[in-house]
Amino acid sequence: MSDVDPLDPHHDGSPLYCPAQAPALGDLVPLRVRVPHGADGTPAARHVVLRSVRDGEPAIREAEVESTDEAGSWWRVDLEVANPLTSYRFLIDGPHGDYRWLTGSGVHRRDVTDAGDFKVSTEHRLPDWTTDQVGYQVFPDRFARSETGAPVPDWAQPADWDDPVVHRGPDVPIQWYGGTLDGISEHLDHLDGLGATLLYLTPVFEARSTHRYDAVSFDHVDPLLGGDAALSRLIDAAHARGIRVIGDLTTNHTGEHHPWFEKALVDPASEERGFYRIDDDGRYASWLDIASLPKLDHSSPELARRLYDGADSVVARWLREGLDGWRIDVANMTGRLGPDDLAHRVARTVRRTITAIRPDGWLLAEHGHDASLDLGGDGWHGTMDYAGFTRPLWSWLNGGAQDGPGIPHGLPWLGLPVDVPVRPGEVTVRTMREVHGAMPWRSMVGSTMHLDSHDVPRFRTVTGGGVDGWIDTAGVGRERHLVGLAMQMTMPGVPVVFAGDELGLTGLDGEHARTPFPWHRRDEWDQPTHAAYRDWIRRRRDHIALRRGGLRWLHAGADSLTYLREHPDETVLVHVARAGHAPPRIPAPALGPGDVALAPLTGAVARVTDGQVVLPTDGPAAHAWVLDRT
Amino acid sequence: MSDVDPLDPHHDGSPLYCPAQAPALGDLVPLRVRVPHGADGTPAARHVVLRSVRDGEPAIREAEVESTDEAGSWWRVDLEVANPLTSYRFLIDGPHGDYRWLTGSGVHRRDVTDAGDFKVSTEHRLPDWTTDQVGYQVFPDRFARSETGAPVPDWAQPADWDDPVVHRGPDVPIQWYGGTLDGISEHLDHLDGLGATLLYLTPVFEARSTHRYDAVSFDHVDPLLGGDAALSRLIDAAHARGIRVIGDLTTNHTGEHHPWFEKALVDPASEERGFYRIDDDGRYASWLDIASLPKLDHSSPELARRLYDGADSVVARWLREGLDGWRIDVANMTGRLGPDDLAHRVARTVRRTITAIRPDGWLLAEHGHDASLDLGGDGWHGTMDYAGFTRPLWSWLNGGAQDGPGIPHGLPWLGLPVDVPVRPGEVTVRTMREVHGAMPWRSMVGSTMHLDSHDVPRFRTVTGGGVDGWIDTAGVGRERHLVGLAMQMTMPGVPVVFAGDELGLTGLDGEHARTPFPWHRRDEWDQPTHAAYRDWIRRRRDHIALRRGGLRWLHAGADSLTYLREHPDETVLVHVARAGHAPPRIPAPALGPGDVALAPLTGAVARVTDGQVVLPTDGPAAHAWVLDRT
Repeated sequence: MSDVDPLDPHHDGSPLYCPAQAPALGDLVPLRVRVPHGADGTPAARHVVLRSVRDGEPAIREAEVESTDEAGSWWRVDLEVANPLTSYRFLIDGPHGDYRWLTGSGVHRRDVTDAGDFKVSTEHRLPDWTTDQVGYQVFPDRFARSETGAPVPDWAQPADWDDPVVHRGPDVPIQWYGGTLDGISEHLDHLDGLGATLLYLTPVFEARSTHRYDAVSFDHVDPLLGGDAALSRLIDAAHARGIRVIGDLTTNHTGEHHPWFEKALVDPASEERGFYRIDDDGRYASWLDIASLPKLDHSSPELARRLYDGADSVVARWLREGLDGWRIDVANMTGRLGPDDLAHRVARTVRRTITAIRPDGWLLAEHGHDASLDLGGDGWHGTMDYAGFTRPLWSWLNGGAQDGPGIPHGLPWLGLPVDVPVRPGEVTVRTMREVHGAMPWRSMVGSTMHLDSHDVPRFRTVTGGGVDGWIDTAGVGRERHLVGLAMQMTMPGVPVVFAGDELGLTGLDGEHARTPFPWHRRDEWDQPTHAAYRDWIRRRRDHIALRRGGLRWLHAGADSLTYLREHPDETVLVHVARAGHAPPRIPAPALGPGDVALAPLTGAVARVTDGQVVLPTDGPAAHAWVLDRT
Repeated sequence: MSDVDPLDPHHDGSPLYCPAQAPALGDLVPLRVRVPHGADGTPAARHVVLRSVRDGEPAIREAEVESTDEAGSWWRVDLEVANPLTSYRFLIDGPHGDYRWLTGSGVHRRDVTDAGDFKVSTEHRLPDWTTDQVGYQVFPDRFARSETGAPVPDWAQPADWDDPVVHRGPDVPIQWYGGTLDGISEHLDHLDGLGATLLYLTPVFEARSTHRYDAVSFDHVDPLLGGDAALSRLIDAAHARGIRVIGDLTTNHTGEHHPWFEKALVDPASEERGFYRIDDDGRYASWLDIASLPKLDHSSPELARRLYDGADSVVARWLREGLDGWRIDVANMTGRLGPDDLAHRVARTVRRTITAIRPDGWLLAEHGHDASLDLGGDGWHGTMDYAGFTRPLWSWLNGGAQDGPGIPHGLPWLGLPVDVPVRPGEVTVRTMREVHGAMPWRSMVGSTMHLDSHDVPRFRTVTGGGVDGWIDTAGVGRERHLVGLAMQMTMPGVPVVFAGDELGLTGLDGEHARTPFPWHRRDEWDQPTHAAYRDWIRRRRDHIALRRGGLRWLHAGADSLTYLREHPDETVLVHVARAGHAPPRIPAPALGPGDVALAPLTGAVARVTDGQVVLPTDGPAAHAWVLDRT
């Protein structure tokens, strides 16, 4: 893949380049390509050709110049949306006949496979509201308590709110702090204060652990959390503030104490027997061979009917109760076992059910690695973008153990038995472009960006903020943390803040990260971090380009990255740095025609001088400007 | 993607690295990774980890050192073949903790998507014989005549054997030279002399053109070619010489005069109506909107039964008549139209039928671009590898118009409206690795390598040999042509020679390339070219490493490429150059432990001196050596 060149031709799936955001099968949709002039000021393309794949065969269509200005040309061509998932790319034929391919993964001076081609889906239909959200993830047991009167179940080991989190060994899932849904309702002002507009709740159904991914019911909210009524109150309270709520459903497995499984085990003639994969000796398939989490068999139509197919299903019911969408746990494994792969069928069926009940419902899938082949558009709207956002960011902003960057943390690197690497910015961007190029633009926009979650170490620990599981006010990791925050709030996708990140919480692993929210120790919160969250979230909410713009890379150096978010109504320039660095040289024509002034969003000044954009060289730092074209 | 480094770790799907060539579901199969020591002579890996995807989720397994020698280490790990298509890669953790990924597309110092992961299929089952073949493609109308007594049909415009080929305009498909199957039978000694062991026939069924991709029957061989009996005689004669024969079947469409279509058009109630996509007004879908080639609708079970599903089908019948396999025309579009994509189902069904009738039958699919998503193993065994072999070779060995390399030919670049580019070798190899990394190794091995075919310009024209459609004896394009030949005969896959290439024939496009074979003008054949074909084919047939070895790149420069073909029984080193070049520096440890002598296959000498392999610097040239380890 070529490195970033600010004068590279550009296209992406955003409205400026692809005005038809929800095409139907057979539509001819206009596509636009920006081709900046070469460094010598002359046109960089003799012609531009659209190459799409139609019914399996490449088809060619010449683009036409729509307009030319002193900085470059706009080319335009109509794409025939021939198939539910249509892929395309552009051939940019340079003045010397050495063509380049422009694909979703960047610009290539050689022939490439179709994996990185732009893709547009007629089935995707991302609900319009998702794009404008800033999410906030809550692990209910650890957010806020209230009185429920529910008896403490036998499996639970009650803990005091200030007790250290048990994060290794068998007690992890049963250490019970007693957070509740009413507790969340009572703290929605915190989300409001932050600017969060979307609440993502990890599971709330009755289970036998505090993470609740071992459901014993999909019909009842856990009484420990306050039961069904508490969820209803929370949804109402959130909606009253304009906060959406999405739930978390495990379609891959249930808990071993789910009545379905208990019946299936004892009654080979039962319908429920067909919900699982149990052999005649009573052995059964389970998630990662963990016996307490028996794997569901999606070849059962009755399972589908109960869980996700149609108006009587679990998926449908809780949308009627007010949920705005679902996050699907272990979506990457759902329906996949040995010779069988029903994952796409499950995804399509869940989508169909959601659309029938709530046409603007959002469907988000958990994937920890390359999700592209599951994001063709007819199933999941998006994924938790660990592969294209979290991992690249971690390896760029890795602050090492507290002794300094590059000192191994000993942190789990998302499943790999090596330390989190330290990668230069060029490489970070290549990975991001490759991962995102493998999915439709709208699937990327419909995915969530996490600095961390309940499943991984706290980002503040990755950036060097320590490993004690408490708030880092020393600020060692703060600067890089806030660079990551700036990227999270200025890139395409839906940013989701894991509750406590905004306080500067640290944590060695996902379990360690599930610290009870320290409401009663507010004076210990890392205020600069909290303020930065408020500021960056406000900037995202104030600027349509940050929420809905395209993404055009202008510079990728080892220590700094620069990109444009372009929208028909506004363009924002972002420059982030993990360390002090030499000034990147960005030719002004990359920003388009006319005299361009850069109105600071963050205070730092940038100017256009002698045909070049002069950016700040400080770091760690994050800056943004609105382009003011005169 | 990283450039080629001779000391990079290596794995591929060949027997040296993956001894289990046909694993079953659930098998644990051993995998081997060679990790050459670093330039300083110390081990380059602290540990090596296998990362495979199991039921949708990455799984990790540590490799162990199997042996260490003075040049490097062999690591070994067992892969669980968990799914019908299991993908995997290796993490190579270096001494300084900066890991690399080793995937099917090369070595990466960053995180990459799964697209290039190694892949192994439990369904693929490539017939063992295919790997040892050298193929020879014959377009029957243009190879050799014999008396058939068949009347000249009304559509045909008879031509004398020496008439110029009409290659543009409406007369192209009806210019009839009258080649026959008995004509081919009578010239099988030519194939023998060349060393070809596989005859690939373009369609022989009755049609209304000389290319016969517009079938009017799948039940009868065209009487113009001698009819069914002539095919039977040809198959028998070929088999008697140990030459296999594969046919060519169009599953995407028929000719408009096929009785199925004629009935479908007039009788809306007919079964045949369901074989096509005809609307109530009589409009119908056709191949690339060419009305004479109506598209088949593979949702019809009756069509499937007649054409490819089961013992009574066309596919089955002609295997029983002696064909050794099928090449499927327009496989990339078969079953694909608008919202429908039945391509994988068709491919699986054809495979099932072939396997039932002839367990060692070969199934080859035409694709002109990235075929990777159709090569998962349960359908087509392989493809015509235009994307991973032909295109990269053309752009490396492009000789330009006769005035010299880089001078535009005005040739069609496989469907793109630009001239064939001139690319450096590094870029050529990157494309090859990316395309081949996207498919299972065995799908690549089961694919065919073409310098050209009846669908594209003659390679001799691409390399600068002229555009007159006749034999180039001036030899201007000969040297680069023979470099391409050397690559075709020394790389993994099944080489297929398009009849006439071995004479030095030129041609501007696929139609122009269909020159009647000049048996009667043997003194005009380009003898150096013919001799080189015999020599390179003999080398391939003599050396198991060239037929069945792995592929390990050692060097990729602008003008020269170097690779190893490694097999448990033999290793061959190949060095090809399009021009004179500086000596590539290949550290001797890249070739493995011990003192290595290089026994020349082509005459040129190469030595190992001062720890480096000293290769010839001449070019255009192609050289090979057998490694003799003492």
